[in-house]
Amino acid sequence: MTHEEILAAAALKSWKQVLGQFDKNLAAFTDADLQRHVAPGRNRLYYLLGHLTAVHDRLLPMLFIGERLHPELDEAFITNPDGAIADPVSAADLRQAWTAINTQLTAAFAGLSPQDWLHKHTAVSDDDFAADPTRNRLAVVLSRTNHLSFHTGQLILAR
Amino acid sequence: MTHEEILAAAALKSWKQVLGQFDKNLAAFTDADLQRHVAPGRNRLYYLLGHLTAVHDRLLPMLFIGERLHPELDEAFITNPDGAIADPVSAADLRQAWTAINTQLTAAFAGLSPQDWLHKHTAVSDDDFAADPTRNRLAVVLSRTNHLSFHTGQLILAR
Repeated sequence: MTHEEILAAAALKSWKQVLGQFDKNLAAFTDADLQRHVAPGRNRLYYLLGHLTAVHDRLLPMLFIGERLHPELDEAFITNPDGAIADPVSAADLRQAWTAINTQLTAAFAGLSPQDWLHKHTAVSDDDFAADPTRNRLAVVLSRTNHLSFHTGQLILAR
Repeated sequence: MTHEEILAAAALKSWKQVLGQFDKNLAAFTDADLQRHVAPGRNRLYYLLGHLTAVHDRLLPMLFIGERLHPELDEAFITNPDGAIADPVSAADLRQAWTAINTQLTAAFAGLSPQDWLHKHTAVSDDDFAADPTRNRLAVVLSRTNHLSFHTGQLILAR
């Protein structure tokens, strides 16, 4: 492996580890359990899973991987806070969406060359990217990995 | 910047972003506030800060940066759970230790070349490293960045 391949592989491994940690903890909750709140007055696990699912779904076009699979989740899980509108999908369907999106993302990440990781993402302009080449696909995946860790720390509080 | 420099820079930026997010939230709590728990029956913020401080202090020798600054924190914050033994330091001293350790870490990370990032860390054997070259300094920093995000997600619940 070249140096840049090893660096990219470390980031992919980090993504897989955090996703694995989240999924292992998620599997310990029944669909009924997902109605629990992470702390009194805070988000339900159901909302937290929906939020992460919508955020990861957005990565598909942002990283030029494909079309979104579940744009219908944004209103309930990104635009609005928990409980503002009726739950749009069952917990079981939400789990399926979560898994399908991450399976597609992880497969796509595994196929990226170091050059691909350095490609700009769609949310940055050409000028901004020229000024700061760290605003690339890798930076987005590191950021979303941190975001997933952030919410994993909350998820486990409801066990 | 070379490809490998850009990849390493993205990881450093991620570390700085997560640390900045944690510190901004930490600054919103008074020393007295740090006695709050992240959720009923869960860790106090004081313990969480001590735990992160001890874990980051361990990075100094692990990444060949220097000697530990605060090995005395391990017993209270790594070996034992919250409340098992008397609090060993004041909240103010803990904040100082946290800042000193991270200042030293961040300065050292900023001086690493891509080759340096690819160097193995002390917790992996030569044989294991030969079999898996992703067990390098970068992987450790990505892992600790995720760990910090994990606990940041808990910290903010006490606001």
